[in-house]
Amino acid sequence: MKLTHPDFAHSRSRYERYGASNSESIMPSASAVSRTRPSFATWLGTTNDITRTFLSAGGVPGLINMGGGLPEPGTFPVPEIARLAGEAVKAHPGQVLGYGPIEGLPELRDALAKRFSTPTTRLSRDNVFVTSGGMQGLDLLGKVLLDEGGLVAGQFPTYLGALDAWRPRQPAFRNMELDDPAFDAHVALAGAQFAYAVPNFSNPTGRMVPLATRKALVAAAHCTGTWLVEDDPYGLLQYDGEPLPRLIDISALGSDGTTYTGPVIYMGTLSKEIAPGLRIGWVIAEPEMIMALTMAKQGSDLCTSGLTQHIALAALEAGLIDRIQPLLLSTYRARRDALCDAMRTELGGWFEWEVPVGGMFVWAIARDPALDTDLLLHHALEAGVCVSPSSVFDAAGRNRRAIRINFTLNEPDRLAEGVRRLAEALVTMQARKP
Amino acid sequence: MKLTHPDFAHSRSRYERYGASNSESIMPSASAVSRTRPSFATWLGTTNDITRTFLSAGGVPGLINMGGGLPEPGTFPVPEIARLAGEAVKAHPGQVLGYGPIEGLPELRDALAKRFSTPTTRLSRDNVFVTSGGMQGLDLLGKVLLDEGGLVAGQFPTYLGALDAWRPRQPAFRNMELDDPAFDAHVALAGAQFAYAVPNFSNPTGRMVPLATRKALVAAAHCTGTWLVEDDPYGLLQYDGEPLPRLIDISALGSDGTTYTGPVIYMGTLSKEIAPGLRIGWVIAEPEMIMALTMAKQGSDLCTSGLTQHIALAALEAGLIDRIQPLLLSTYRARRDALCDAMRTELGGWFEWEVPVGGMFVWAIARDPALDTDLLLHHALEAGVCVSPSSVFDAAGRNRRAIRINFTLNEPDRLAEGVRRLAEALVTMQARKP
Repeated sequence: MKLTHPDFAHSRSRYERYGASNSESIMPSASAVSRTRPSFATWLGTTNDITRTFLSAGGVPGLINMGGGLPEPGTFPVPEIARLAGEAVKAHPGQVLGYGPIEGLPELRDALAKRFSTPTTRLSRDNVFVTSGGMQGLDLLGKVLLDEGGLVAGQFPTYLGALDAWRPRQPAFRNMELDDPAFDAHVALAGAQFAYAVPNFSNPTGRMVPLATRKALVAAAHCTGTWLVEDDPYGLLQYDGEPLPRLIDISALGSDGTTYTGPVIYMGTLSKEIAPGLRIGWVIAEPEMIMALTMAKQGSDLCTSGLTQHIALAALEAGLIDRIQPLLLSTYRARRDALCDAMRTELGGWFEWEVPVGGMFVWAIARDPALDTDLLLHHALEAGVCVSPSSVFDAAGRNRRAIRINFTLNEPDRLAEGVRRLAEALVTMQARKP
Repeated sequence: MKLTHPDFAHSRSRYERYGASNSESIMPSASAVSRTRPSFATWLGTTNDITRTFLSAGGVPGLINMGGGLPEPGTFPVPEIARLAGEAVKAHPGQVLGYGPIEGLPELRDALAKRFSTPTTRLSRDNVFVTSGGMQGLDLLGKVLLDEGGLVAGQFPTYLGALDAWRPRQPAFRNMELDDPAFDAHVALAGAQFAYAVPNFSNPTGRMVPLATRKALVAAAHCTGTWLVEDDPYGLLQYDGEPLPRLIDISALGSDGTTYTGPVIYMGTLSKEIAPGLRIGWVIAEPEMIMALTMAKQGSDLCTSGLTQHIALAALEAGLIDRIQPLLLSTYRARRDALCDAMRTELGGWFEWEVPVGGMFVWAIARDPALDTDLLLHHALEAGVCVSPSSVFDAAGRNRRAIRINFTLNEPDRLAEGVRRLAEALVTMQARKP
């Protein structure tokens, strides 16, 4: 199957011509663009458009999209959201249709504070910041914490979107080897602006950070002062076993019972719990960080839509998340199992993987260390299936040995067909080897 | 009247402690915060929270808010939006509740291309980019065009939000003296990354850029290659006289009849035409710029809500903007006149101003060059009225001789009372002079 789709493996080069050195960037550069226009900012020369391709892959006829982290649209609570939307406009026209506070709708901040409070984690409105989706939290975090070249301690391979968000500030990254028995959290965090982890079903690997490592990260954050970012979009999507405590809850255990002032910055989103199209996320942190994020959001999008915030508030108050969670869990558990079954049949000779206990992805590492998954993607797209190559989860783009396969968007037989096409692509790639 | 409201005149100092030099910023700085935490990014030490204060001023009992650029909530088409919101969710659940293309909903891009096309300005979907409100367009523009210290040619005093958006990239500014008969557009634009103008009822001055100057700016942009940003949130809010051609339409006059590829970047928003709470704006530019903005938005908020985009699309298709415009114009024209009448009675001895033919603001310059409007604001807040001091529209914060007064949010008698309180504040300030 030949697709008229942008070629992932070559997508980086499209933007290379935007690049210019800092010293040249305010002068017109005839070589950079076809007309005599000023160059684009330097970071654009180092980016990739893979997320954009995932989001538009739905429009490619016949393609099985196992690349992005997209939910099953059949799980969206359509009649409820339709009703809540109309009611929100009529009941709160001024808040829904006017400008609102930058930090978010006060009632939504209160509801989120209540949702994430525990007997020992005391949260008030001042700990809560509403974002236009989870990605905006990552962007604003970079904006308030990173000067150019600032140091970030990251859990690699890491979320592609976090790399996208921080790329314009060209941070330096230090890898936290969380799975290494010799991992020293204090050494990993010391001197970094912040540490970034996805403790639950990490994107892309699907792994859970064990309790002992969670405790060590929190202790190191308290000791070194380094901010510890806990990104938790998948927390509720756990298919087996028991949840582990959040980093922020571990951090609050030692507090004096007043409003949270510790170093953990907890991030979440309605995108995986209800629907991405609402573009509602949140950051929970100590009040000084919330104030800094507010200054950053003032110059980014002024405020999040009052309409989507009121829908989110009504959904929280009506218990909508709890009501749809059983459907999400049963749907995605069955799809994970279908994907892993198909992989065992078709891909066991090529890759090895762990069955993830939660999240949206299986992370498969090639048995052959020389297998290049950027190249595999090229063949996969020709075969009519899209997966994510490991290079995009690596700040330097060097890891080319693994793939991330999403199991939430497609039904079991489509997943099986996608895996079959991937096996076909592997055979084709092998056959064409020089 | 004593208010428990944040003191505007002192609001800058609250963030000064966030500041740190670049070289120190990745190390914990005990002096910067009370605990041993890494410093915030440098730009936070140079910002102000006046927009935040405007947006929350509605919550201060008794305060007459003539500071922000807020619309009259009575003009919001509440029943229509409530209906469109419910219909959008039911008719397009996948697009409304799922992730969408970063560039925006294709149908909305088509509708905007059609709206802004003329017989000589040919626009296609590839010329149109949807933003989460007008502010996001400014933020993303800075993101794709400014490396640290990049040069911006600006029309000063200028929109506070543009300064907020670009502040993290610490640009250098060159003032375009558009009202100076000797203004040389070529000299003003040469070597700048972009020029920024609000040709219609510029915020804060309310002035229209005359036709000859519009033509000169466009000619200079074509000649030098410098991007020319035309920010046009108030274009439809014209109370007297005839509209002047848009910069992008002047630029397209000389084109060959194909899709627009000129240097003008046209920005607009539904915030002043329908309602701010939808958070829908747009950028119209040549396709390469749209592609760069797409890469920037990928790492900022991934995509704008499908719900608000579908409401915007339905509103455009239903002609909602045209239907509510007469109400907007008659309401705001009467309020502008009421404000200027009250100013003539109460403030004529203190200030001089022109009656604006459009927009949301009167710009009043003190007759006494030594009058400090930062200080005046302090007294004005005590007297129960809020206006914008000129310092916030100046990148260096040096202009302290003028105020911007909004006339769209308050009814005529509240405007008159606000002006009376402002006169009272002037008398108090004069009396307390050392």
